Amino acid sequence: MEKSRLEKQFDFILEADKEKTILRKTLLSGGSARENDADHAWHTALMCILLSEYSNEEIDVLKTVSMLLIHDIVEIDAGDTYAYDAQGATTQRGRELKAAERIYNLLPEDQAKKLRALWDEFEAEETPEARFAHTLDNIQPAMLNNATDGAVWAQNKIKLSQILERNKNTADGSAVLWEHSYNNFIKPNTEKGRIIAD
Amino acid sequence: MEKSRLEKQFDFILEADKEKTILRKTLLSGGSARENDADHAWHTALMCILLSEYSNEEIDVLKTVSMLLIHDIVEIDAGDTYAYDAQGATTQRGRELKAAERIYNLLPEDQAKKLRALWDEFEAEETPEARFAHTLDNIQPAMLNNATDGAVWAQNKIKLSQILERNKNTADGSAVLWEHSYNNFIKPNTEKGRIIAD
Repeated sequence: MEKSRLEKQFDFILEADKEKTILRKTLLSGGSARENDADHAWHTALMCILLSEYSNEEIDVLKTVSMLLIHDIVEIDAGDTYAYDAQGATTQRGRELKAAERIYNLLPEDQAKKLRALWDEFEAEETPEARFAHTLDNIQPAMLNNATDGAVWAQNKIKLSQILERNKNTADGSAVLWEHSYNNFIKPNTEKGRIIAD
Repeated sequence: MEKSRLEKQFDFILEADKEKTILRKTLLSGGSARENDADHAWHTALMCILLSEYSNEEIDVLKTVSMLLIHDIVEIDAGDTYAYDAQGATTQRGRELKAAERIYNLLPEDQAKKLRALWDEFEAEETPEARFAHTLDNIQPAMLNNATDGAVWAQNKIKLSQILERNKNTADGSAVLWEHSYNNFIKPNTEKGRIIAD
């Protein structure tokens, strides 16, 4: 028997629960534990509500918040790929596409299409909402890395050039927020040698 | 020197990070770990985006999502009060008001007022958005408790009458979602003796 619309919605909602067990490299501000994907999504959504005034272009805040809430759902199957994991990056896109196919299709067709389109838009980074979402997605871990004395950067021997390459589009979403992140999170940790100044 | 608007916003955003360390009684669907407050807020916000069609009354989805993203921020200072902790409940309101006073005022004045008003509205439960937010806030842990074989209900010897009292307004936000929660999460666990059928 075909599942009801509500059953399909709850199938997806319960599946999404697994995002809370996907750990990122980032440490929480107390430094005692690693952040999970749901924590991160919540934090970026909250930032979007508070910081949308700094978007370079006008954005639809609900659309951007929705994008941020779902942007890492694929990691339930694909796992978290660390920003500076060059080997993981070579297979990341394929793993994530396969995950998107399975997970979004738990939803009723109209919502599966809508959320998948939203994730595709995030990935393509070609709209004001996607650009701003990426800005927050990049700034949030920099803020936490700074709050934990750059431990994750230092442990992984991250170079400034890698961070600048990773953030090459961060200012496209918000010049103000990129400047804040560079001056307050990245630069001080480079000066203290926690980021390798190459 | 007075902090800048952006510095105040980041003070709040970094403080909010602590919500990820506040543990709830609820177990994640895998049953291996307890949910934290940020996980829970993320999950209810995601549910709001997917389930708003079932609200009894028309709602502003962005407002409701914003409300859900911040609804437990006070627990950074006040701690999580378990839904069935009668003793904790006697001091909960006072602890949470004090926390709201400190935490929201980290923000620039306009945003402090806006978020505080949103939390007050959630607490008062007198608008369509607040009613629907409470519906999701109540249904989400019931879904997870059911997914973990009612372990948290059984361990805490929870009675059906306590659950019905706790959920006395859940249908006010959404009759459809309350019916789903009762029939799929609460009733089967009562029949299996994991909830005490008093």
